[in-house]
Amino acid sequence: MKLEVNANLIYNLLSPSTIILNIHALRTPQQRVLEETLVIEPYIKFEELTIDQSENRLIRIETFKEEEITITYKAIVDNCFKETDHTNEEEISIGQLDTAVFPYLYPSRYCQSDKLFRFANNKFGKIKNPYLQVLALTDWIHSNVEYLSGSTNSQTSAYDTVTELAGVCRDFAHLGIALCRALTIPARYFTGYAYKLYPQDFHACFEAYLGNEWVLFDATKLAPLNSLVKIATGRDAADTAIANLFGNIEFKEMNVSCTALEENFQPVFYDASQLKGLSYQ
Amino acid sequence: MKLEVNANLIYNLLSPSTIILNIHALRTPQQRVLEETLVIEPYIKFEELTIDQSENRLIRIETFKEEEITITYKAIVDNCFKETDHTNEEEISIGQLDTAVFPYLYPSRYCQSDKLFRFANNKFGKIKNPYLQVLALTDWIHSNVEYLSGSTNSQTSAYDTVTELAGVCRDFAHLGIALCRALTIPARYFTGYAYKLYPQDFHACFEAYLGNEWVLFDATKLAPLNSLVKIATGRDAADTAIANLFGNIEFKEMNVSCTALEENFQPVFYDASQLKGLSYQ
Amino acid sequence: MKLEVNANLIYNLLSPSTIILNIHALRTPQQRVLEETLVIEPYIKFEELTIDQSENRLIRIETFKEEEITITYKAIVDNCFKETDHTNEEEISIGQLDTAVFPYLYPSRYCQSDKLFRFANNKFGKIKNPYLQVLALTDWIHSNVEYLSGSTNSQTSAYDTVTELAGVCRDFAHLGIALCRALTIPARYFTGYAYKLYPQDFHACFEAYLGNEWVLFDATKLAPLNSLVKIATGRDAADTAIANLFGNIEFKEMNVSCTALEENFQPVFYDASQLKGLSYQ
Amino acid sequence: MKLEVNANLIYNLLSPSTIILNIHALRTPQQRVLEETLVIEPYIKFEELTIDQSENRLIRIETFKEEEITITYKAIVDNCFKETDHTNEEEISIGQLDTAVFPYLYPSRYCQSDKLFRFANNKFGKIKNPYLQVLALTDWIHSNVEYLSGSTNSQTSAYDTVTELAGVCRDFAHLGIALCRALTIPARYFTGYAYKLYPQDFHACFEAYLGNEWVLFDATKLAPLNSLVKIATGRDAADTAIANLFGNIEFKEMNVSCTALEENFQPVFYDASQLKGLSYQ
Repeated sequence: MKLEVNANLIYNLLSPSTIILNIHALRTPQQRVLEETLVIEPYIKFEELTIDQSENRLIRIETFKEEEITITYKAIVDNCFKETDHTNEEEISIGQLDTAVFPYLYPSRYCQSDKLFRFANNKFGKIKNPYLQVLALTDWIHSNVEYLSGSTNSQTSAYDTVTELAGVCRDFAHLGIALCRALTIPARYFTGYAYKLYPQDFHACFEAYLGNEWVLFDATKLAPLNSLVKIATGRDAADTAIANLFGNIEFKEMNVSCTALEENFQPVFYDASQLKGLSYQ
Repeated sequence: MKLEVNANLIYNLLSPSTIILNIHALRTPQQRVLEETLVIEPYIKFEELTIDQSENRLIRIETFKEEEITITYKAIVDNCFKETDHTNEEEISIGQLDTAVFPYLYPSRYCQSDKLFRFANNKFGKIKNPYLQVLALTDWIHSNVEYLSGSTNSQTSAYDTVTELAGVCRDFAHLGIALCRALTIPARYFTGYAYKLYPQDFHACFEAYLGNEWVLFDATKLAPLNSLVKIATGRDAADTAIANLFGNIEFKEMNVSCTALEENFQPVFYDASQLKGLSYQ
Repeated sequence: MKLEVNANLIYNLLSPSTIILNIHALRTPQQRVLEETLVIEPYIKFEELTIDQSENRLIRIETFKEEEITITYKAIVDNCFKETDHTNEEEISIGQLDTAVFPYLYPSRYCQSDKLFRFANNKFGKIKNPYLQVLALTDWIHSNVEYLSGSTNSQTSAYDTVTELAGVCRDFAHLGIALCRALTIPARYFTGYAYKLYPQDFHACFEAYLGNEWVLFDATKLAPLNSLVKIATGRDAADTAIANLFGNIEFKEMNVSCTALEENFQPVFYDASQLKGLSYQ
Repeated sequence: MKLEVNANLIYNLLSPSTIILNIHALRTPQQRVLEETLVIEPYIKFEELTIDQSENRLIRIETFKEEEITITYKAIVDNCFKETDHTNEEEISIGQLDTAVFPYLYPSRYCQSDKLFRFANNKFGKIKNPYLQVLALTDWIHSNVEYLSGSTNSQTSAYDTVTELAGVCRDFAHLGIALCRALTIPARYFTGYAYKLYPQDFHACFEAYLGNEWVLFDATKLAPLNSLVKIATGRDAADTAIANLFGNIEFKEMNVSCTALEENFQPVFYDASQLKGLSYQ
């Protein structure tokens, strides 16, 4: 499906500064970027970065003047995600696991899977099929954690959310990831644009590594799984910030949108009777 | 200098298990591995892993029987570290920073640099030369944190150590890293064998990215900087565990040693009057 | 029922010191102390303290020499606890609540009831009878938290235990108290000797304020509710330490025992079909 | 000095509710309440409470209707604080300490003195006179912690503030208390009205127990020490909330003022050369 995304960010630079932005749509076999533009006003040169083996598409903006700048990103993306089948998904064997996914198996800043080991295994340890485990923990989060704007901050972690039971998409994703890892299922953070998300904003959800695929899950259930435009993945929000600011910078305003360029959008949510997954890999 | 290292680990496997070991000496231009052997008794096949772009040399051991196993690693290493000069070290410019080091600039599980921002900048922010900043924070840790076996556990983070002021090499390293990152200096965790460390054990210290080199620092000052045999680097201890165990495994015993094969070892510690660094890169 | 309790503590005093001990059996209408002796060897004078309006019986020992001391407490107690009926227990009205119990309604050091508000109300909020609420949360703790010696330390709080799901009697009690307070039921920490507790040690459980009585609950279910000899109550373990040590003191050894002086002991545990409580008030 | 204080609070009651208010000026030998009125509009009966041995003057308001209520408190107070001399203040002897102050010696919810033991003793342990210790730690907080509205929340504790180094009066007080207790100096939280505080609001500071007096300290240095009208004391903010709300209540607005009814106000701040204290006991 073709989707158009827009992001508009305004910063007031009070000193020479560096901004690292991560708002570009990812280019993957399942997500073709048909058109895109990034405009900074007033004009400032920027540099595309890639960090190590990650595919995330970062932009580095270096500024030397005190001024207000407006950054506008626009892209048209063809999102032809892959459907995966997990009917006979087998337990993950660490002995066979692809080494590239190991970093997503260990605790990270916001996903302290080691502290959630008993909790995860008591609640979901008896389920045999790992896909069904992730489905069950996603449902548990959805039923037990209240989506409540302003209830958390940048320090909130999965360890808090599992008890305080309130949060936003970032917190839902961190808890999902931490529970997966506590069950020895690699999991990573996913940021994106989401059609049908109200109010419109950047969205966060997560991917679990099942059957050698990164399968998308969203414990908020606020957006259809096939409505997303993927921006980045990482171990948690510390790896995939929309913006990292270095210098004396005042954040002024942000506007985000994601609209469908085709009719007949059929929203996809998972259904325990089908055991299908969606992958944006 | 030529050093011989030995590690001997005994595990009692109570179920089919997977062990990921990270005890091999790293191979770098500054650290040549002249000889090495890894023996598992009784015999079990093992597999060498590398994870993504990291050079860390991991071993995966997959077991199917309940038995006690003994893992013995031995290596002879020629450690010809590089000396670096930081007399005119300039403040790090994020705008020019090598993208490969970005992951070492952000907070991680045990190094919550975002929460130490004011602390680090109040104490060390006025020092201009970044090498002197790291030297100063290393000295501060050494003077203020008591080395006390058993005072911390696997959950202890830099945020705890900065206040509780007691810990072991792991905690000293985490605090050093967190303070560097809070000063916008990339820093990473370093595990190794250390000659002249008593009692003999694996050692942990840290590297700061200065002048496009990873320069070694050790806030414990327990081992000369030129006595180390590097095993691995990562964002913090979560990335560089000596062993990750999957299965029902009982840890029985560990012995580690590091001895010099040459006479006339001249221990190196930093000296604020010289502004020299050591790099094992 | 008549019970004999013994406590034997050995300390090595390395400097002039003060020890505040709280090991004396409480004197209440439901617990008569028939005989008791406290002996310190070598002889040191001690002073009985009471702190404010609390009935806890503290001892202050002031020492001036470096020496090893042995403190031996022995008492015979007649424990004729009150049985309370909660069949028609009504929801607590803050508007009518006895002001003396207010301190037990607020969060304390180890019982962060404010952070457990959603958790407690989601799980137990629909139960109408407050006695049944406390019974349900006690059962939940018993079923979900593993009793595991050495799994926690003096910093562990209810906020940790609700997620980490392992602990000792102290942790079970803190979690019980925090959940009660989150449900607007006053609750307090209870330390005592316990007959039929193996291995013999000091025990901790908690009291909830129901129908104007302090009713005993024990989420560990390790000792019959009628086997206890009450020592002290407080907001949490910070108020009711067995010993507070001021000075350079080495703890050497502790032995505790509690034996019945009567035959035909009928252990009492609660039974959801009866809605009876036990009060040592 | 005569001071007039006013507090005006507006709540929107969305259900039958109970409000426990603690805004009345305390009556002590050093603080005479010459006149006072409390008006609730529309009229609701209220009850004066005292909790245990505390002198704090609480009000319980029980409501049965959904309505908006306005609570207005006004008092004229004659504040004739006592001046205390600490020139020859001796180290506190736990062996002689008044038992009534013991609760203020132990860690509490927001004042984890046990975790600050090394920090406090490293920094202030060598100072002999306890008054000078408290003066030094107050100055340290004032110099190192930035007063920054909105930087903290109701979960922030002394353990956070000592590292994050930003906060409001509540956080300054908690850190002061925790450091005192870590030095074995009893300390308690103090809430009040403050003349010369801009913007006008309730204020929090702390008292340390020195020479058998509760001596006032304020690490914010935002208000002269002799400009306060004391409301309450407790172990920390958990004991002395301005309002505890039970029910579905929306906080609408609050206005506080404190004005002098006499001319020639001479502001008092401590001066290390004089070793004088102020007590509102």
